[in-house]
Amino acid sequence: MHSKYRVTKFRIDNTNETDDLISIEEPLEITLKYKQGDKIISQLLSITMRTPGNDDDLVRGFLFNEQIIKNINHISSIENFGKKVGQYNLQNKVLVTLNNSENVDIVKIKRNFLTNSSCGVCGKSSLDALEIIKKDKTPLLEPRLSSKIILQAPNILRENQSEFAKTGGIHASGLFQKDGTLSNLREDVGRHNALDKLIGSALKKNEIKPKSQFITCSGRLNFELVQKVLMTGIGIMIGVGAPTSLAIDLANKFDMTLIGFVKKDSFNIYTNNKKVIVS
Amino acid sequence: MHSKYRVTKFRIDNTNETDDLISIEEPLEITLKYKQGDKIISQLLSITMRTPGNDDDLVRGFLFNEQIIKNINHISSIENFGKKVGQYNLQNKVLVTLNNSENVDIVKIKRNFLTNSSCGVCGKSSLDALEIIKKDKTPLLEPRLSSKIILQAPNILRENQSEFAKTGGIHASGLFQKDGTLSNLREDVGRHNALDKLIGSALKKNEIKPKSQFITCSGRLNFELVQKVLMTGIGIMIGVGAPTSLAIDLANKFDMTLIGFVKKDSFNIYTNNKKVIVS
Repeated sequence: MHSKYRVTKFRIDNTNETDDLISIEEPLEITLKYKQGDKIISQLLSITMRTPGNDDDLVRGFLFNEQIIKNINHISSIENFGKKVGQYNLQNKVLVTLNNSENVDIVKIKRNFLTNSSCGVCGKSSLDALEIIKKDKTPLLEPRLSSKIILQAPNILRENQSEFAKTGGIHASGLFQKDGTLSNLREDVGRHNALDKLIGSALKKNEIKPKSQFITCSGRLNFELVQKVLMTGIGIMIGVGAPTSLAIDLANKFDMTLIGFVKKDSFNIYTNNKKVIVS
Repeated sequence: MHSKYRVTKFRIDNTNETDDLISIEEPLEITLKYKQGDKIISQLLSITMRTPGNDDDLVRGFLFNEQIIKNINHISSIENFGKKVGQYNLQNKVLVTLNNSENVDIVKIKRNFLTNSSCGVCGKSSLDALEIIKKDKTPLLEPRLSSKIILQAPNILRENQSEFAKTGGIHASGLFQKDGTLSNLREDVGRHNALDKLIGSALKKNEIKPKSQFITCSGRLNFELVQKVLMTGIGIMIGVGAPTSLAIDLANKFDMTLIGFVKKDSFNIYTNNKKVIVS
């Protein structure tokens, strides 16, 4: 599932504004319903960011792969429910009714309820994830960047990745100054961890100065990564790969400039393009 | 942080076994300690799969980005603790002591405790993630594959990705027959979701026949993805990108054949290489 977004496509020889297709990212809330003795129990199990479509397959695979159920015959029904929400008018909640509690690993479910992940959007208790972040309303700050500096940033990031050079299998996030110099870099097999490490390190050194900085991440840009950068007050974020719909929506909401698909002599500006000097 | 692993490097003209450097993936368990009134509370907050190193930065950034703390001065100490475990002899637990509960978003922490993610390793209540999966001990099954079929699989996957062609920003997982034909494919912005959708769909159609099938995923291979494939009983998994250390360790433990870095005329076999006909 995808949608059209207005994008500024910077090309060395021909920059223009055009429609682009973007993969949709929306939260899905999974609730389990099952009998335990005489009681019928409804339990919120998980929230995941997913591309809408085949939600039933997602739920089946998730419950089976996590071994919450041992067999998919233990599912009697999977139904989307709740109000249609968001710009895509979707029911982002799903109710899974299980046959009976004998088939279900109740211990596993309870354990799941006692832990949490570092995945940013996980640990949100409702679907209004967009609303509960950045309550302080301080506007983001950012420098104006020339296209030259944007084109160079991913290369500088990669050249300075000591681990990537060795293994070819690790993500990075970098804090850049407006003149294009890299001042801090962290690596991790998880994209979100690399960014948490970068921000944690920059906070410790007290080196975050949003008015003259931007952040560059390897890989694709999703809701979670944009959310983390928002927290720093930094208003320009560059990714090597494609953004999701929710990454763009979130950046738009807070006037962040979101740049993606940076290649040798081209990139796309997805939001707030006035902060980029296309020259 | 990385480590040496023995790898079979298939190259059209010269296949050999050699050492390769692999990025390390290990779980990190974060526990918060803080005062609430007269009580001192210790609370398991999160388990994340990370590359060891700069754990303190990771914790700082995570707590701040999740707005569990408003300011990093609210952290008085961050200490690794517990037994040194695993082949890298690491303390994979961290204790974060906070100044006092006034600075902490207790509501947020409680909310985190009431939800969970679909990230596979999240939702595990301890660090013995390797032990709690695949309790049934049924051996994996797999066909023998020729190198030609392995080299083609990622191309076939991509050619059949209707969403990738449009947006360039979406992951896929595909179920393949031993003759190289693709029988099922699912896409999602999340790698783990694409695989959950694929497995959920294949279970629904009752089309999983491990002895004659393999699974191919776009992107990199981590612990979580290997874990999901294990659950199906399918013993060959192909990824376009690099695997993590824990993906390899897990595949090794269950005699799964793990293949990565598939390019035009080369790929790497990380585990159980006897199932591949290198010709």
